[in-house]
Amino acid sequence: MGFGQQPDAPARVTFADNVRRVRKEQHITQETLAERSGLHRTFVSSVERGDRNISVDNMERVAQALRTTVAILVTPRP
Amino acid sequence: MGFGQQPDAPARVTFADNVRRVRKEQHITQETLAERSGLHRTFVSSVERGDRNISVDNMERVAQALRTTVAILVTPRP
Repeated sequence: MGFGQQPDAPARVTFADNVRRVRKEQHITQETLAERSGLHRTFVSSVERGDRNISVDNMERVAQALRTTVAILVTPRP
Repeated sequence: MGFGQQPDAPARVTFADNVRRVRKEQHITQETLAERSGLHRTFVSSVERGDRNISVDNMERVAQALRTTVAILVTPRP
């Protein structure tokens, strides 16, 4: 990838990296995140790889499953 | 709608409201925003109404056309 948490990374990549990081900080598996968000595990996996052009409503489902917001998940880490 | 810029509004609604507000602040028409972002004018119109479950990549195109970021456009106004 090579974008990582650079401030000019595409929102898709920032979202992917933040979802994976926050999920791991919460000690949640992709399977659990999938169940909580009502999405398929392979979908969550592809989102975390930045392979998926996810819609805003599904970003919201992921954010809610992680008890956070879409705004936080698309913001590059300081 | 009725969500407006409430902090718990869906990201889709916050994005819609912010795009419309920022576009107007910049004195840009929907047509110009559409041209700049490479999207169709009716698509931009439906996004601003919150009718469209827009993808993260298209959110990025809109944000770039407005010289801002997806993170800013999904953040409720303080």
